Amino acid sequence: MEVASSKKYAAEALGTCVLTLFGCGSAAVAGSVLGTLGIAFAFGLSIIAMAFVIGNVSGCHINPAVSLGLFLDKRLSGKDLVGYWIAQFVGGIVGAALLYFIIANCTALGGVAATGLGCDGYDAASSVGIGLVGALVVEVILTCIFVLSVLGSTANEKTAPYAGIIIGLTLTFVHIMGIPLTGTSVNPARSFGPALMMAGIDPTAISQVWVFIAAPLVGAALAALIWKAFKTAK
Amino acid sequence: MEVASSKKYAAEALGTCVLTLFGCGSAAVAGSVLGTLGIAFAFGLSIIAMAFVIGNVSGCHINPAVSLGLFLDKRLSGKDLVGYWIAQFVGGIVGAALLYFIIANCTALGGVAATGLGCDGYDAASSVGIGLVGALVVEVILTCIFVLSVLGSTANEKTAPYAGIIIGLTLTFVHIMGIPLTGTSVNPARSFGPALMMAGIDPTAISQVWVFIAAPLVGAALAALIWKAFKTAK
Amino acid sequence: MEVASSKKYAAEALGTCVLTLFGCGSAAVAGSVLGTLGIAFAFGLSIIAMAFVIGNVSGCHINPAVSLGLFLDKRLSGKDLVGYWIAQFVGGIVGAALLYFIIANCTALGGVAATGLGCDGYDAASSVGIGLVGALVVEVILTCIFVLSVLGSTANEKTAPYAGIIIGLTLTFVHIMGIPLTGTSVNPARSFGPALMMAGIDPTAISQVWVFIAAPLVGAALAALIWKAFKTAK
Amino acid sequence: MEVASSKKYAAEALGTCVLTLFGCGSAAVAGSVLGTLGIAFAFGLSIIAMAFVIGNVSGCHINPAVSLGLFLDKRLSGKDLVGYWIAQFVGGIVGAALLYFIIANCTALGGVAATGLGCDGYDAASSVGIGLVGALVVEVILTCIFVLSVLGSTANEKTAPYAGIIIGLTLTFVHIMGIPLTGTSVNPARSFGPALMMAGIDPTAISQVWVFIAAPLVGAALAALIWKAFKTAK
Repeated sequence: MEVASSKKYAAEALGTCVLTLFGCGSAAVAGSVLGTLGIAFAFGLSIIAMAFVIGNVSGCHINPAVSLGLFLDKRLSGKDLVGYWIAQFVGGIVGAALLYFIIANCTALGGVAATGLGCDGYDAASSVGIGLVGALVVEVILTCIFVLSVLGSTANEKTAPYAGIIIGLTLTFVHIMGIPLTGTSVNPARSFGPALMMAGIDPTAISQVWVFIAAPLVGAALAALIWKAFKTAK
Repeated sequence: MEVASSKKYAAEALGTCVLTLFGCGSAAVAGSVLGTLGIAFAFGLSIIAMAFVIGNVSGCHINPAVSLGLFLDKRLSGKDLVGYWIAQFVGGIVGAALLYFIIANCTALGGVAATGLGCDGYDAASSVGIGLVGALVVEVILTCIFVLSVLGSTANEKTAPYAGIIIGLTLTFVHIMGIPLTGTSVNPARSFGPALMMAGIDPTAISQVWVFIAAPLVGAALAALIWKAFKTAK
Repeated sequence: MEVASSKKYAAEALGTCVLTLFGCGSAAVAGSVLGTLGIAFAFGLSIIAMAFVIGNVSGCHINPAVSLGLFLDKRLSGKDLVGYWIAQFVGGIVGAALLYFIIANCTALGGVAATGLGCDGYDAASSVGIGLVGALVVEVILTCIFVLSVLGSTANEKTAPYAGIIIGLTLTFVHIMGIPLTGTSVNPARSFGPALMMAGIDPTAISQVWVFIAAPLVGAALAALIWKAFKTAK
Repeated sequence: MEVASSKKYAAEALGTCVLTLFGCGSAAVAGSVLGTLGIAFAFGLSIIAMAFVIGNVSGCHINPAVSLGLFLDKRLSGKDLVGYWIAQFVGGIVGAALLYFIIANCTALGGVAATGLGCDGYDAASSVGIGLVGALVVEVILTCIFVLSVLGSTANEKTAPYAGIIIGLTLTFVHIMGIPLTGTSVNPARSFGPALMMAGIDPTAISQVWVFIAAPLVGAALAALIWKAFKTAK
């Protein structure tokens, strides 16, 4: 029997909220003591934490690019694609709002502006000063690899039960190189929530957020194309 | 055939002792060289180490909040809830006492007061100065996510054999952001033992420990509610 | 039904491209903030990311030494050994070229020469000044252990579905000690691409690259010999 | 059909050689850049690397304390206990000799005396100045937890195929707190080889090595006792 749509969308909102709160939260609250590897694990482990809670309900996409990839691979209906997207953006905004509240309660953090809420960016907002073209290329590549691992690990019935571990480690993987370049979005909902929260404080994030919405979706479409070529091989 | 209650309680005491000794011990003995990620792994890997030793005996809760979550999900009897809780607090106290003994034997550590035994706290006792309300909110959220992963990963017979790995990685996950905020309790027994050991040296921990008993229990109850909504989806 | 050769070779090229781009990229872009452990995880997780995408197509060798080991264990034909090798070298060159492009787009990285593209080396090019003989011995040992783990974990039908995780963690393992010694090649295709890209800027890498082609192949042959002795034991 | 004894002993020698070379090597060659967490992963991942190579041959004990624990649990014969012990000590000595050779070939490492070969110790040889009694207690506890995880994870047929991953992560776990205290031996063969290599340069290690032989064996015996009590519970 089909899971009710409302439950699936609630699950996606919850999962995306957790990913945004803990991933961006680790960067904003503890980035200087955690380092790149620690932040990369925070994002990756969020998938492992949630996959075994909501995986049987919604599949635990918690990322509009992942939902697009599964829609293009004909594993998600058009109606659910829209529903998942809305739920994921809502979850990302709620996660960012919770993080805003927590940071505002910490007297030693210097305020939300100082922590930057872990936003993505290019040019001056990138720690290595990557330009717009470079940022687009990087986000397309990072998302393509990530969505390929989702498509691959969930398609095989032997590895599907533990796909959450594989996908989580792959999300860690793409963050390791990507954090200094663009911050590693690979997830439009995870980027939009924090950018919205920061809009009144520093408009850089919201003005650049289109890159972190468009490029991951292109990367997911590319992944679906590559996967189609490979999966027919067997 | 049912496992004898005395064996189950002994297993919970042993497991909570190991979690407290190694988790708090990593923070107290080696925190400055380990960093947040290393301490987060120490806590998480304690679950992986013990789950495959006592998992078949008691389920390896080693945390009163986890036991509450499973009681509310009707997987633990009221009698065992009380027995587990007593065993877990005893284990936490013994683990903290062992750690006290080890630190007292290290001439280069500067004494137990200097290491702080890895206690949890808010206000001046939090490295980012989180206040009381923030600490309550954070501990409720961290524990809710953690207990959800326990409820989810153990409910599915395909993932149950390796649930210890999933739960351990989730405990690492909630520590990564939580350590700088509150120290990350999510476990009343793990907080009470060290606070008791420190009571005569610095009364801060014991005066704040109610937060790290109450908030995790609220978080676990919230997790049980969320899980009830999601699990009926299938 | 046999997978078409063209698909297998395309898969090997893609996988080796990802390994080279992300592994060397992590060292070049973020090495100073990541540290040895972070770079070691970048290389190891590249296997986990790709194994569940192309594992069913080509086996995800993405390393000429691994293909040699499997050829010597009679699990790969001579024709495919040549095809895989060509595809892997092409993938390594494309990955290095993509990395070159990304670095050139980052205004704060100081140029490709400054990042060194994460190349392997001995004498002055090794961070601990290992000499030629030491570098040869180290690369033979590191590759032998790595290829042994590939031969062992894929031969057992119980562990084969998750062999990608075991092999990825083993690649992390050999990088931990190896990075300060030689940079840890254990993979001729992963070394050749970056050395070629650097040839016009600093000829050290291309002049030393023969070591990182020859020693891994010797290590793989040694692994095949050891594995033959052990596998007949059962 | 029984595996020939000579193959089992050769496998144990190889595995212990790899554990000693890579574990102590990571500490000696790269300790200052790796940190405690990196060294802890080097030791733990050595189990994961070797378990799937020699696990079906000898069980991959690669530690005299583990062999003692399995002997006391009646899973290893007295004859094999002696054979395994001899093979493990030989492997530890060969691993330490290989490491000595590699370090002697690195012009920038300052010689074998400066790197210390990653030896264990107490008093002045412990980074936190732990005394003899503390060192004995710590090694007994660390080894007891480690051997318990071996006994537990291999006894359950559902988790046995991947026990190498669980045991490896547990070895990482006991190293995280133990490295600053005693260096974390938990393995007589891993301690004896490096101490022997250092004997002519600095006699501290060889004079203290009895602690790192005796305490792990006591810890393993304690683990066998605890396991006996728990396993009968089911």
